[in-house]
Amino acid sequence: MNIDLAAARVPGFRFAGVSAGLKTVPGAKDLGLIVADHPCPATSVNSANKVKAASVYVTIERLRAGRLQAVVANSGCANSFTGKPGLRLAKASCALVARQLGIAPALVVPASTGVIGHLYEFAKFSDGARAAVAALSADSMEDFARAIMTTDTRPKMASTVIRLNGTQVRVAGVAKGVGMISPRMATMLAYVVTDAAATTAQLKRALKLALPFSFNAITVDGDMSTNDSVIVMASGLAKNGAMNRRDTYAFNDAVGGVCAALAAELVRDGEGATKLVTVKVTGARSAADAERCARQISNSPLVKTAFFGCDPNVGRILMAAGSSGAAVESERLVLYIGGVKVAARGALLVDALAAAAAKMREREFDVRLDLKLGRANATILTCDLSYDYVKINAEYTT
Amino acid sequence: MNIDLAAARVPGFRFAGVSAGLKTVPGAKDLGLIVADHPCPATSVNSANKVKAASVYVTIERLRAGRLQAVVANSGCANSFTGKPGLRLAKASCALVARQLGIAPALVVPASTGVIGHLYEFAKFSDGARAAVAALSADSMEDFARAIMTTDTRPKMASTVIRLNGTQVRVAGVAKGVGMISPRMATMLAYVVTDAAATTAQLKRALKLALPFSFNAITVDGDMSTNDSVIVMASGLAKNGAMNRRDTYAFNDAVGGVCAALAAELVRDGEGATKLVTVKVTGARSAADAERCARQISNSPLVKTAFFGCDPNVGRILMAAGSSGAAVESERLVLYIGGVKVAARGALLVDALAAAAAKMREREFDVRLDLKLGRANATILTCDLSYDYVKINAEYTT
Repeated sequence: MNIDLAAARVPGFRFAGVSAGLKTVPGAKDLGLIVADHPCPATSVNSANKVKAASVYVTIERLRAGRLQAVVANSGCANSFTGKPGLRLAKASCALVARQLGIAPALVVPASTGVIGHLYEFAKFSDGARAAVAALSADSMEDFARAIMTTDTRPKMASTVIRLNGTQVRVAGVAKGVGMISPRMATMLAYVVTDAAATTAQLKRALKLALPFSFNAITVDGDMSTNDSVIVMASGLAKNGAMNRRDTYAFNDAVGGVCAALAAELVRDGEGATKLVTVKVTGARSAADAERCARQISNSPLVKTAFFGCDPNVGRILMAAGSSGAAVESERLVLYIGGVKVAARGALLVDALAAAAAKMREREFDVRLDLKLGRANATILTCDLSYDYVKINAEYTT
Repeated sequence: MNIDLAAARVPGFRFAGVSAGLKTVPGAKDLGLIVADHPCPATSVNSANKVKAASVYVTIERLRAGRLQAVVANSGCANSFTGKPGLRLAKASCALVARQLGIAPALVVPASTGVIGHLYEFAKFSDGARAAVAALSADSMEDFARAIMTTDTRPKMASTVIRLNGTQVRVAGVAKGVGMISPRMATMLAYVVTDAAATTAQLKRALKLALPFSFNAITVDGDMSTNDSVIVMASGLAKNGAMNRRDTYAFNDAVGGVCAALAAELVRDGEGATKLVTVKVTGARSAADAERCARQISNSPLVKTAFFGCDPNVGRILMAAGSSGAAVESERLVLYIGGVKVAARGALLVDALAAAAAKMREREFDVRLDLKLGRANATILTCDLSYDYVKINAEYTT
């Protein structure tokens, strides 16, 4: 499957991204709209954080019905930990957009991202929303992608084209989020739209299959956001008819591929990141062990600073593995960095370290730890921990 | 109880710290000895990491007997993940020291700290050990403290004097470790010596009581070392007689106080740290919830970079609390930074943030989160995440 990391048109959907003055940078886009021509089957997964944003509560509530026509997303303010005023603000924002579009408020969901603990100015939002409605266009996916960026350095999009029942179908997605990224149930904000004729149940299934290999398999800093949402919407305009087994497989694969490409883009653009590292744990005694071990390695500040320093610091990787709670036996495990074997039979392979260091100087490499204790595997995408991570987060506004 | 953060004399113990050339910096002390006049009751707790150093295996094995006469500790090499050659090296090192001292090898335990995956040169160790034996003195506790330093910027010692049964008793300790610090069962290296007449069982009890409020209540980076050991030894030279209930209480309190002072010193000197932050969670539904929540806040890179930036970023603290798995209700919790109430009744107290930021500019402050859901509490000491943490760990040698 070919995944394109650029904006795409998806029949049945229009997009917009405008500046409403919610971000402090003048002229920066901070209000985005996705609008479907008709109410669509849709599903979402959301942050498992017990402190959830107002937008997440509204999204969860409204998507119980499995139908959606518009998403209004703002950056510059997370509207999280804002209590009842926050909930009222989120609902009023949706109502305003619904009125502008002439649709039912229950078909609109909000999303917010930015600093936690503050409300945005409704007057600014309101003017921005009018401008966004006026700007809606099938070609504006990138504008939307820009409008939801916070510390992201670039917009993130991915799309693919598949054939279902002989008909061409598009699946495209947009995502943001390069800090507070360790989604266990979802990620920051990601929207996947398709013109496939798919039911809500089919979308749920496709998203459920995609998550463990995309948004739930990445980390930037081990911190889970309060505002995470992933939404999938299907316009049905491809008129591909009911999906048979092969179609379902192809469709799930396309949704999975788009989600995985977006997830990798988030980590590649992780706050201060200079490297994308794929951490694979194989031969674990159980799936839980494999995941625990891969996550511990991926989130260890000592491992991540070693990545930044291009230092094949085997000891830190094994320290993290050993402290993960997973079954680990020093004498059995084999460790590879960039395909170079650096530890085996309970000892470091000192002669291999120079080759491993060379691999680590590339922008993307993998670390594979074969525990040799069973058959379970897990893969987590992570990035390095650099001066810029500290800079971005020590100086990011209150 | 008065805790002094300086070297102390403890009857029955001599110390040494010399340069054996195991560290790359010429002349840096890297080999330390603690020697008791006679075999002592002793106990230890050690790393729960599944990848343990050779020295930890030997320490665990030898301290089963509850008696110890000497500790030989080196920095510059962790002798961890070194398999059977590592175990042989650790035992040969103890045997050499035992021969020099004329005591049984089973009464000597090793400790190593530094880079993982390498063996140290036995010839260098051997020359160093002879010099250390020659240098042993009751006044050299600080030399020992220096010999076990790695990225530590200063030696760490704490001592106190108490009266048991009318007799003066000293309890003093030495510790090192400012990175890879998130000990769940122990810490990097810490040694507590006392001239109290205490049995192994009494020492075990005192250490068990001390841990939850000292070495197990600190974090620098959430990474658990492979080489952690805390050892307590009692020479009995104070001849305070059998401890009654009040004596036991006073003794446990002294051991606890010395351990807590050393633990705080480790975090204060945490890699790159500019601040010592006490994170208290109160009103949790269970002790496990309180600890989980305090640890998640204490280890969050976003919270720690906000500490570095003196940014009262309430949202990040609540994000961490909400993602910890503990029961958290936005509407009920109350958050204080440096004693200033910054969040309550589901909302940020915006007017209080300037006062909170002022408190954060101090070198030490506390964060208190009252969950208002129960009666359980937990306290964790942590530090901030600065540019220097990245510098130290990206440039620290392989």
